Amino acid sequence: MTVFIDAMGGDNAPFEIIRGAVSAVRELGAKITLIGEEKLIGEELKKQGEQGIDIIPSTQTIDMHEDPVMAVRKKKDSSMVIGAGLVKGSFSDAFISAGSTGALLATALLYTGRIKGIQRPAICTMFHLDKPIAVLDNGANADCKPEYFVQFAKMGSAYISGVSDNPRPKVGLLNIGAEESKGSALYKEAHELLKNDDSIDFIGNVEASAVFSGIADVIVCDGFAGNIFLKASEGAFKLMMNMLKDSFYANPLTKLGALLVKKQIYAKKDMVDPKTYGGSPFLGVNGTVLKAHGNSDALAVKNAVKQAITITEGKVLEKITQFI
Amino acid sequence: MTVFIDAMGGDNAPFEIIRGAVSAVRELGAKITLIGEEKLIGEELKKQGEQGIDIIPSTQTIDMHEDPVMAVRKKKDSSMVIGAGLVKGSFSDAFISAGSTGALLATALLYTGRIKGIQRPAICTMFHLDKPIAVLDNGANADCKPEYFVQFAKMGSAYISGVSDNPRPKVGLLNIGAEESKGSALYKEAHELLKNDDSIDFIGNVEASAVFSGIADVIVCDGFAGNIFLKASEGAFKLMMNMLKDSFYANPLTKLGALLVKKQIYAKKDMVDPKTYGGSPFLGVNGTVLKAHGNSDALAVKNAVKQAITITEGKVLEKITQFI
Repeated sequence: MTVFIDAMGGDNAPFEIIRGAVSAVRELGAKITLIGEEKLIGEELKKQGEQGIDIIPSTQTIDMHEDPVMAVRKKKDSSMVIGAGLVKGSFSDAFISAGSTGALLATALLYTGRIKGIQRPAICTMFHLDKPIAVLDNGANADCKPEYFVQFAKMGSAYISGVSDNPRPKVGLLNIGAEESKGSALYKEAHELLKNDDSIDFIGNVEASAVFSGIADVIVCDGFAGNIFLKASEGAFKLMMNMLKDSFYANPLTKLGALLVKKQIYAKKDMVDPKTYGGSPFLGVNGTVLKAHGNSDALAVKNAVKQAITITEGKVLEKITQFI
Repeated sequence: MTVFIDAMGGDNAPFEIIRGAVSAVRELGAKITLIGEEKLIGEELKKQGEQGIDIIPSTQTIDMHEDPVMAVRKKKDSSMVIGAGLVKGSFSDAFISAGSTGALLATALLYTGRIKGIQRPAICTMFHLDKPIAVLDNGANADCKPEYFVQFAKMGSAYISGVSDNPRPKVGLLNIGAEESKGSALYKEAHELLKNDDSIDFIGNVEASAVFSGIADVIVCDGFAGNIFLKASEGAFKLMMNMLKDSFYANPLTKLGALLVKKQIYAKKDMVDPKTYGGSPFLGVNGTVLKAHGNSDALAVKNAVKQAITITEGKVLEKITQFI
């Protein structure tokens, strides 16, 4: 398999992306092709003494602030558009970009295409606590119909069964109460459809506060609620980390205490840091496309490559294609 | 003013509720009336040596697992129904319950009633970081119309201007992106209405990750998204606290370090603990009704009383009535 990487996407492009690719080759034995400004990438690879990475030249870059759909239609020689096209229909390759989520989604829809039968691809966010937990959709579809939830459930189940040794993942519906009667009209209808689908192991409604407990392996929701869930968690983690730092610097005794506990705490923190796990797969598109975090550094890129390999080896795309 | 307290609601009722009421009388000089089983409350007050608290006897209790609307219609002699009726139309009294949110909401709607002109009352959750931040609706209305958001914005503004020295609170719309074009169809329409209402200081969309930064004083959203926001934050805080505990107990050195930093960390943590601030006001009902956290202890009850006093002294109910 080849992992194609958009060298021009993300806050730290291209250098951290290139360095991440180099680590992935050296530490994971991955086969990588970088897409982007040929001269710039070539020089950096030379500096790093790395000869095992191919380059596909591109002349355009999609900016974070451009209108996604307009940009991807116009900039056909951008690293993102080229990458999304290269993995179309491939069960063996993958494409990673740390560029704009909206643009990558539009590119994936236009140039990678949807798996036949999929109504709406979804952004799947992964949490890795004691086990992987997939939450989808996380922002691809702000407005959903009840039947999308069933496809999200199937895609999430295919994903978890592909990347872990869990053949029948438990599926929960994100909701504002655990009881069956809870939620908006949309969620009540979605609940009904999920409950009646024997191809998935539906366990019912899951409150947002219970997601991290691991009660379900796959959490389905509309893209609006999923994005609120994800970013609320992010905000809360950030607030807690800032509070921790303030506590550590409070006085000489706390500074000493901090020295003793810091390493353990930061190791734990990595469990909820998206950088540790690389990226969010777009499920339902006809190829393996991964969105890496916008501020990905070399480590995050290497971890995204690792995740791309796991997805491909786990035959996630084939599983989804068969499941639908 | 009198603060009426449902002595029978919540996981720790009635004893922690009674103890909280006693502290509120002694430490805050509050005037409290407890509603519930007369004999039981009387004995506990006697044990505590407290003679300054009145009791209104009630013979029924609404259980956490009852259907809210059915229960409140049937159990007219429950502590909750009595309390909600007592504050109807009063600008000077308040009612606090730690019982079921759904039942309290149904009781408030039926027995306290709505302020004239209010389409849908909302549950307002407070965060107290450097300043108070109000997030509403948090679950009263799972399905919203765009115009509800404008009323939420006005009620939240009235609340913040009443309880703090901020005469013109900034209002943000919870959304999945900061740009004006972001969100579901409902949120795009709500954005348009909020933008065109000069009576509030609307600053635009606010992502869930930015709420705790204090970019806005009032965050408006539908009850579904608000509940996801709130509970996702709760889940993330809990996960972080568990991670912290695991880190502290990792080895003898971390245990020593923990001893040195723990006090500071727990003090900070209180800033995001709902118990520290007592309760969530129901805005839009025709009386001051506060939902205290289900597992409220005496401290939480005392703090809810403090909050009820602040709300009443800040003339929040009058402000909302005038604003609408």
